[in-house]
Amino acid sequence: MNIREATTEDWDLVWPIFHEVVKAGETYAYEVDTTREQAEEIWLNTPRKTYLFEESGKALGTYFLKTNQAGPGSHVCNCGYMVASQARGKGLATLMCEHSQEVAKELGYKAMQFNFVVSSNEGAVRLWDKLGFKTVGCLPKAFNHPVKGYVDALVMYKWL
Amino acid sequence: MNIREATTEDWDLVWPIFHEVVKAGETYAYEVDTTREQAEEIWLNTPRKTYLFEESGKALGTYFLKTNQAGPGSHVCNCGYMVASQARGKGLATLMCEHSQEVAKELGYKAMQFNFVVSSNEGAVRLWDKLGFKTVGCLPKAFNHPVKGYVDALVMYKWL
Repeated sequence: MNIREATTEDWDLVWPIFHEVVKAGETYAYEVDTTREQAEEIWLNTPRKTYLFEESGKALGTYFLKTNQAGPGSHVCNCGYMVASQARGKGLATLMCEHSQEVAKELGYKAMQFNFVVSSNEGAVRLWDKLGFKTVGCLPKAFNHPVKGYVDALVMYKWL
Repeated sequence: MNIREATTEDWDLVWPIFHEVVKAGETYAYEVDTTREQAEEIWLNTPRKTYLFEESGKALGTYFLKTNQAGPGSHVCNCGYMVASQARGKGLATLMCEHSQEVAKELGYKAMQFNFVVSSNEGAVRLWDKLGFKTVGCLPKAFNHPVKGYVDALVMYKWL
């Protein structure tokens, strides 16, 4: 498996994926015009761990892992995953999600929570469901989709 | 109503409330040993607005308001409320919550979300429910209560 931890030096590889996904404005609650520097702070510096999926020196996917809530909530982690458009449909998200669950367990987390899965991102919802995540919440019209308008966002959760 | 916006100069008034509530470890997902400086960053500097409920020069309650998610999620805000132990049962949380909804609407938010209401905090759950917040999610065992152990946390939501 070509998944390895990302360092500051890898940001050149990871940024194009972040930029492509966020610019589309369809799946992540980040500003669509997030700059390269802001994105590095969000995706690489703030999380506890960031990984990239690499093939022939190119990054095709990336994910971060962080503690979702502090103190009495710190046994639950949160992850976000992105796959480059040219690498979709090949199971990379599955591989990264499975990888992240192993990392989470090694770090001592007991559960993983996705705070904001856009309901119109049906492929993602189906995939997380298949990987054992339960939809434990539905945030009415919490995401402003560029084409569909206000759509629900889901909270998904798995005890590891 | 004695609710006014808090500034850096008010932190002396607000910090004792934060400290008392967080030290108990029963209702907020902050480190129980959060320092005064960390708390100021969390409660006063990071949020978009922070308010205090004042009586005779003493702060009896406080709340913050911030944008819950960026970009396509930025029409939903998030608030947190704290009441000093000696001022509980007098309706301060209700007054602050109603005040926060007005502020939220003035700032252009369309909805308010509470991300992490500890289910064993029954008074809070009942109060938010009464004020029109729906329980839209339940995070299984997401909060480690100092006495009760792992308890669920609720996601509550209101379209304004």
